[in-house]
Amino acid sequence: MEQHDFFMRQAIELANENILNGGGPFGAVIVLNGVVVGKGSNQVTNHNDPTAHAEVLAIRNASKNLNRFDLSNCVLYTSCEPCPMCLGAIYWARIPKVFYGNTRKDAASIGFDDDFIYQELSQPIEKRSILMEPLLSSEAFKTFKDWNLKVDKKAY
Amino acid sequence: MEQHDFFMRQAIELANENILNGGGPFGAVIVLNGVVVGKGSNQVTNHNDPTAHAEVLAIRNASKNLNRFDLSNCVLYTSCEPCPMCLGAIYWARIPKVFYGNTRKDAASIGFDDDFIYQELSQPIEKRSILMEPLLSSEAFKTFKDWNLKVDKKAY
Repeated sequence: MEQHDFFMRQAIELANENILNGGGPFGAVIVLNGVVVGKGSNQVTNHNDPTAHAEVLAIRNASKNLNRFDLSNCVLYTSCEPCPMCLGAIYWARIPKVFYGNTRKDAASIGFDDDFIYQELSQPIEKRSILMEPLLSSEAFKTFKDWNLKVDKKAY
Repeated sequence: MEQHDFFMRQAIELANENILNGGGPFGAVIVLNGVVVGKGSNQVTNHNDPTAHAEVLAIRNASKNLNRFDLSNCVLYTSCEPCPMCLGAIYWARIPKVFYGNTRKDAASIGFDDDFIYQELSQPIEKRSILMEPLLSSEAFKTFKDWNLKVDKKAY
C-alpha cells in the first residue's frame, strides 16, 4: 500500500503545482512496473482545450512514451475520480486499475460538472440537455460496411 | 435541412478517406455560423493515441482555431454517435447540438466497444470491470480547498 500512496501523492502534487501555474486542481500519473510512464495536469484554460484533463493528458503522454495505444498493464493514479470523458478514455486505453483521491461529489462542491455529466450520459438520448439527432444513417452505415470488408484493417 | 446534410456528408467523407489512410471509420466536423471551424478523423492506431477519436480531435482543432475552450455556439456533425469519452468532451466544450450518422449499436456490430462503455459508466463504481479505489482522500481534498480559496482562479 505504501507504493500506492507514493504515486497518489505524485498525482496530488501535480494538481498542487498546477494551481500555482494557473491550471485546474487536477493531476494524474500512469505507472508501469513501479515506474511513472505518463503524467498530466489539467490544462483546459491554459491551453484552451476542453479535452485537456489530467487523465487524458497522462494517457496521451504514456501512449506516446510507450509507443502503443494499449495500456492494459498500467495503473492510473488521479487526484480526483475521473469524469465520464476521462473514464471513457481509460476504458479505450484498457487500463484495468484506477486509484482516485477526491470524488465526483467533491468536484461538484468546488464547481466542476462531473456529476451532472454522469447523470446526462445515463439518460436516453432524447432526455439529454444536448440535442442529438440522427442524420443520413444509411450513407454513414455504408462507411462501416466498407470498413468491415477491408482485409488489412487495424482493429482495436 | 440541406445545410445539415452538407456538413454530415463532410463528416462521412472524412471517415471514408480515413479508412484509406489506415485509420478507423469515423469522421467529424464542427460548424460555426455555416463555416467548418474544426475537423477530425479517428487516429487511434495511426498516432498510438487511445483518445484520438474523430470528435475529440475536431473539438481540439476547433478550440485551437477559435482560441477558446467554450464552443457553445457551434454544432457538431459526426459520422457515428459519440462514445462516452467523446460525449463527455462535447459536454465540457458546451456544444449544444449534435448530428450523428451511425448509432452505438451500429458501432458494436463492427467491433467497437462504445455500447459496452456506456453500460459500464452507468454502473456504480464497485460493479465496473475496471477496479477503482479511493486513496488519500483528505490529502486530495486539501488541494480542492486551496483551489477554492484562490482569488484569481480561472473557473470553467
